[in-house]
Amino acid sequence: MNPNFATVGQAFVKTYYETFDSNRAALASLYVAESMLTFEGAQFQGSDAIIKKLTSLPFQAIAHVLSTIDCQPTVSLGIIVFVVGQLKTDNDAPHTFNQCFHLKPKPDGSTYYVFNDMFRLSLHNG
Amino acid sequence: MNPNFATVGQAFVKTYYETFDSNRAALASLYVAESMLTFEGAQFQGSDAIIKKLTSLPFQAIAHVLSTIDCQPTVSLGIIVFVVGQLKTDNDAPHTFNQCFHLKPKPDGSTYYVFNDMFRLSLHNG
Repeated sequence: MNPNFATVGQAFVKTYYETFDSNRAALASLYVAESMLTFEGAQFQGSDAIIKKLTSLPFQAIAHVLSTIDCQPTVSLGIIVFVVGQLKTDNDAPHTFNQCFHLKPKPDGSTYYVFNDMFRLSLHNG
Repeated sequence: MNPNFATVGQAFVKTYYETFDSNRAALASLYVAESMLTFEGAQFQGSDAIIKKLTSLPFQAIAHVLSTIDCQPTVSLGIIVFVVGQLKTDNDAPHTFNQCFHLKPKPDGSTYYVFNDMFRLSLHNG
């Protein structure tokens, strides 16, 4: 198990959302060809497809405010990071979002990339 | 990658929440000694500790209603299942919850157990 799972996971999400909120295209370096994104139920695979989706989201300004960040170590020195927060786009009211990342270390162990990524807004019928 | 990830993941959560809502102690068979639970930020490891926590939660009746279930395959034939739903305990108002499971196949591949489990209610300050 990865002994640094909490430190790495916390640092990762800080970088991830700062990058998302300032320059979504720069998230490309955090994904690889095998990465998967499920975004509001739609599935994308590979850094190119994922960044195309993220950069096509129809808002100009976005800000993520994190409420909770939970991290657990998993197999093969991976880390699962589970985030609940609020996001605010343009002049809309804040929405609650939930996101789950599975991070894998690069072969040299120096940095991590996103293997699994699942995103949902919390919306309920009725 | 596990080709049955969606079928297995959907069936797993159906069983999981039906069991949770009817007989929490019976969830023991879905966890093993290496399983991890982070429940509202508190960490537990091993089936015994996890079931002790789940059975000590202070409500009599509980019902989970699922809004979305997302599944992705991950390393070593594992499956990540990401759930958003609402739960209702006793006579309280419904609360939104989010839960992320990483399922691993048992060595003979016949069934799956929970390796990682992270649970959060969606509560925000202000």
